[in-house]
Amino acid sequence: MIIVMKPDHTKEDVLNIINKLEDFGLRAHLSEGEHRTIIGAIGDERKLQEVPFLSFPGVEEVHPILKPYKLVSREFKSENTRISLNGNVFGDKKIQVIAGPCAVEGREILEEIADELSSLGVPFIRGGAFKPRTSPYSFQGLGEKALKYLAKVREKTGMMVVTELMDPRDAVLVAKYADIIQIGTRNMQNFRLLTEVGNIDKPVILKRGFSATIKEFLMSAEYIVSEGNEKVILCERGIRTFETETRNTLDISAVPLLKQLTHLPVIVDPSHAVGRVDLVPPVAKAAVAAGADGLLIEVHTRPESALSDGAQSLRPNAFKKLMDELKLIAEAVGREI
Amino acid sequence: MIIVMKPDHTKEDVLNIINKLEDFGLRAHLSEGEHRTIIGAIGDERKLQEVPFLSFPGVEEVHPILKPYKLVSREFKSENTRISLNGNVFGDKKIQVIAGPCAVEGREILEEIADELSSLGVPFIRGGAFKPRTSPYSFQGLGEKALKYLAKVREKTGMMVVTELMDPRDAVLVAKYADIIQIGTRNMQNFRLLTEVGNIDKPVILKRGFSATIKEFLMSAEYIVSEGNEKVILCERGIRTFETETRNTLDISAVPLLKQLTHLPVIVDPSHAVGRVDLVPPVAKAAVAAGADGLLIEVHTRPESALSDGAQSLRPNAFKKLMDELKLIAEAVGREI
Amino acid sequence: MIIVMKPDHTKEDVLNIINKLEDFGLRAHLSEGEHRTIIGAIGDERKLQEVPFLSFPGVEEVHPILKPYKLVSREFKSENTRISLNGNVFGDKKIQVIAGPCAVEGREILEEIADELSSLGVPFIRGGAFKPRTSPYSFQGLGEKALKYLAKVREKTGMMVVTELMDPRDAVLVAKYADIIQIGTRNMQNFRLLTEVGNIDKPVILKRGFSATIKEFLMSAEYIVSEGNEKVILCERGIRTFETETRNTLDISAVPLLKQLTHLPVIVDPSHAVGRVDLVPPVAKAAVAAGADGLLIEVHTRPESALSDGAQSLRPNAFKKLMDELKLIAEAVGREI
Amino acid sequence: MIIVMKPDHTKEDVLNIINKLEDFGLRAHLSEGEHRTIIGAIGDERKLQEVPFLSFPGVEEVHPILKPYKLVSREFKSENTRISLNGNVFGDKKIQVIAGPCAVEGREILEEIADELSSLGVPFIRGGAFKPRTSPYSFQGLGEKALKYLAKVREKTGMMVVTELMDPRDAVLVAKYADIIQIGTRNMQNFRLLTEVGNIDKPVILKRGFSATIKEFLMSAEYIVSEGNEKVILCERGIRTFETETRNTLDISAVPLLKQLTHLPVIVDPSHAVGRVDLVPPVAKAAVAAGADGLLIEVHTRPESALSDGAQSLRPNAFKKLMDELKLIAEAVGREI
Repeated sequence: MIIVMKPDHTKEDVLNIINKLEDFGLRAHLSEGEHRTIIGAIGDERKLQEVPFLSFPGVEEVHPILKPYKLVSREFKSENTRISLNGNVFGDKKIQVIAGPCAVEGREILEEIADELSSLGVPFIRGGAFKPRTSPYSFQGLGEKALKYLAKVREKTGMMVVTELMDPRDAVLVAKYADIIQIGTRNMQNFRLLTEVGNIDKPVILKRGFSATIKEFLMSAEYIVSEGNEKVILCERGIRTFETETRNTLDISAVPLLKQLTHLPVIVDPSHAVGRVDLVPPVAKAAVAAGADGLLIEVHTRPESALSDGAQSLRPNAFKKLMDELKLIAEAVGREI
Repeated sequence: MIIVMKPDHTKEDVLNIINKLEDFGLRAHLSEGEHRTIIGAIGDERKLQEVPFLSFPGVEEVHPILKPYKLVSREFKSENTRISLNGNVFGDKKIQVIAGPCAVEGREILEEIADELSSLGVPFIRGGAFKPRTSPYSFQGLGEKALKYLAKVREKTGMMVVTELMDPRDAVLVAKYADIIQIGTRNMQNFRLLTEVGNIDKPVILKRGFSATIKEFLMSAEYIVSEGNEKVILCERGIRTFETETRNTLDISAVPLLKQLTHLPVIVDPSHAVGRVDLVPPVAKAAVAAGADGLLIEVHTRPESALSDGAQSLRPNAFKKLMDELKLIAEAVGREI
Repeated sequence: MIIVMKPDHTKEDVLNIINKLEDFGLRAHLSEGEHRTIIGAIGDERKLQEVPFLSFPGVEEVHPILKPYKLVSREFKSENTRISLNGNVFGDKKIQVIAGPCAVEGREILEEIADELSSLGVPFIRGGAFKPRTSPYSFQGLGEKALKYLAKVREKTGMMVVTELMDPRDAVLVAKYADIIQIGTRNMQNFRLLTEVGNIDKPVILKRGFSATIKEFLMSAEYIVSEGNEKVILCERGIRTFETETRNTLDISAVPLLKQLTHLPVIVDPSHAVGRVDLVPPVAKAAVAAGADGLLIEVHTRPESALSDGAQSLRPNAFKKLMDELKLIAEAVGREI
Repeated sequence: MIIVMKPDHTKEDVLNIINKLEDFGLRAHLSEGEHRTIIGAIGDERKLQEVPFLSFPGVEEVHPILKPYKLVSREFKSENTRISLNGNVFGDKKIQVIAGPCAVEGREILEEIADELSSLGVPFIRGGAFKPRTSPYSFQGLGEKALKYLAKVREKTGMMVVTELMDPRDAVLVAKYADIIQIGTRNMQNFRLLTEVGNIDKPVILKRGFSATIKEFLMSAEYIVSEGNEKVILCERGIRTFETETRNTLDISAVPLLKQLTHLPVIVDPSHAVGRVDLVPPVAKAAVAAGADGLLIEVHTRPESALSDGAQSLRPNAFKKLMDELKLIAEAVGREI
């Protein structure tokens, strides 16, 4: 940590800070420049996260130097974390695909969708049993009934189940049915929920908050890993910007940046990023070209009747076409799908 | 709802939509212009929230006309909702002030702060027992111990307690000690938590998500009110923008806009908006001038030792000075404080 | 245009609007719903752009239906605009590459860079003679001298010259030397400059303003085309968001969206979008996968001595490697590069 | 400037940077911490603005310490800059008011508006002769004719004229008629225009770019001042955010922040910030409460016929009411209006 003093600081101000650093077991390194005096903190600056140096007399600016996350960083662990489910590995050469409806709306329709996906060889089915909806009057999900339908699909097709947890009280229930637990964008900083899944022995897909910085995203992953669950899959799904033509703006550079900063697998959800079925394929292709380890795509056999997010769900034939195209791009970047 | 058809739509596309509208009990009103055909939905369009018209063949654009919230709207209830606690009313002429530390850090320090505030006549003390922190390594709050300290302060000073709930499992516990329950910015769309406080008979301060639109903010309030709890106080606390000099950007126009759209009281938290103690006073003044019904201000007797947000906490003397200045502005806009 | 009336509007309010519409040669179509009265404007609503219906008594909301741009829209012209320079076509199967330093810093260094690019078969060289710099103390470009160096490079290597115009007074000068005139992100809404290049018979690369919506971007293109110059190449170069790890956030979905809305070619500048050399290659790949018609990439032989944007300039060997990789992706999406 | 080295840097990497610093006449100060090696640059770091240290081998992060602007900073000049026009001073106790239509639409309507404002004692009239419009099909202003009408108004009423310059080629013309030259939000980084008004001996109102940071805003002011014109008035007018209910989001904290960072006067334009006439008064009040030195308000006698921005123009009676209310708030903060 670098603490920059105001031009009019006093010697006492500096002493004050040096003492504080020493209280926390760090040493101070003083550098008096022509324009500014600078104090460097030597030692583990993470201990200083709580100290409001900005409110100390004489302080102008504070620059943290170390990244605030540790366990999830490449510095801590240089090789890729590989998360394997029945031989399907996230974080390896093969790009994993998760597809399915936004919400589980009924047994028949779920099976109809699953049959299509299964016949295309998709290993993971997604479908919400509990739905975080902006409106209290919108469809909130079928709850445990939906989880049971998903389990049935697994039994029948062998597909593994990805479903969202939005309440710590449902953790045991969801973990019982899910192969991968999803934490949604609005819950990325629901820290109690993160702690909860940190104590479950199942892989977790953590979606980036639609207004979370990369740093905050990694800090949320750190919550889960620091509780003991290292099987975290990061999912970029678009951020909120001023642009209104698309639902969100996919931060495509987040993919290579995350791959650089962390050892965790990084997947992309093009469907929620753009919110429009016509833009899902080109954005999915971009994600693969940029190095994503997986894709999370909404597919529905009858999008016009979907109870949630129909406007962004691909029909099976469009999805099949996309998969064929993605295969070529995956190969072009030395991957497979 | 207005549905705009593409120039190349077919008659069947239009029929398809008319049928769908009728399925939901609405009527269609067709208008064929020179450039576009437009279908208006007549009836309660809120029923259509789930229908993904954008994925229907031939559809170009969809414009909702009705606001998606109802119970919280001025249209539904024109007079101000007044929330009274021991004669201190939110939503009335008098501007209510809530002050205190970000987190309850210990009994002595809390009492020290409370004594200062109490002597200034502040009716509400704030202090977090459960703290949502970006880092798992940061101070997470003292939990029930903190709630007990707050209750002690109430007993001793008569100040009422405002404290945050961040986990539905703590709802009963927090409700037992709090006079007003606070829902933090990161939980504005934690819908399970909203449902939970919708079923508690205590006033709720709902903080705007730092990236929530006004519409989403009101939809979250609608969640609480639709469960039966009408005592919701909205709190503008800054939104995330590209500017980095301040922690967030206070959306000052949100105050009069919310007062126009809803009957609920609207308060402002200048401390979290700016994140810097030097900017809290001018922004607090602006909030009062713009019509805020209350203020939520961080005050700490020893900000340099605060375990959370020390950089934005006013010392008691600065707070006292601010209160004196706010008094004049409140009068200038026909209010009191 | 759809005008939504407030619940408490009067008949006079409606009449008032109908009269106004008729003044502008449009007809009104009235639709009285259960909750709202809606007035549709029939005719060319672009004539209404100046009418502030929101300030009319009784009006609640105004929704434009027609897009505000015309000449640049796919609706106006469905086939791709192809802009050809010596057989190198923007808007065709082949993806065009423009590379070079941010600024022209001297004759020797420019020639050194050009030789590298030329040997790789890059058809277009970029280099700023006039530099829009945030600081008045930064290098502002060599002016005409730089233009002459660029011309020399063209003479020697056959590469065509892309360079920025930032002042209408330099238009004749720049047009004399440039093969393609670039309008920078900060000048996307410098309407006088747009008008100026609208009257020059040279292709124009119009960079998206870093905070411009897609609609505003297309309106700026409309400025140029409406003056008579149809040779406009749109360039997505990242937008400003809350994320600070990258210089800007590349809006990858803008590529397919623009291709859908307009017939103009769309290229991508990954260098300015990310501002970091390590992220340029993955983002460039994503752009090609998403359907870009070209790339604008900063290349420098000695980035550590560059007078502008050195941190985002690829060295020739990294650029060569990228081109090889892009070739495979281009093929995977049915293009060539 | 602080340069943070990667954990795996070499001694050569460090030497390389030390040499570079010395090339620019600065000294290096090395600090080897437990986790990172840090190099501090001692001397005038502004000389280093062009050096892309991030592209040097072994470098992880670069933190500038000095602010990039100088002449406009409080550090350079601690007392307020006072800009006086006929005894009306910007930057003093009295809050200055500039009012008038967005654009000059004709002689009669301008005089009608001016008469109203003049009778209320408003010292400055605004009105655009050259209008930067998003659409090429919108009213672009009456040009010199409008300037002449404004001059007539000055002659008749004694009001001083504020009008926008958008093209360096019009600088002499506009300077001939204007008392204060306005640079619009879209031209805040039109550096040639800034240089131009830096050489004119007239006060300049510099509007903040709607996506400019405070730093960039001050750098643009630095452009003007560094050319010799110290009479710059900064104008906060709202920034672009994700919120769509208002045209822009007024950054209220920018007012006290700018007053702290610079000696230049700071005014606020509430009309463009909110874009809705109903929100202009509360936001104008907030601006005064937050410490603004002036206000720029759109007033029109017939907003429904305005050729530009009618939806945000106050009628004279609403403006008069606002002025009465502002008087009280100004007094409450120790100012007058």
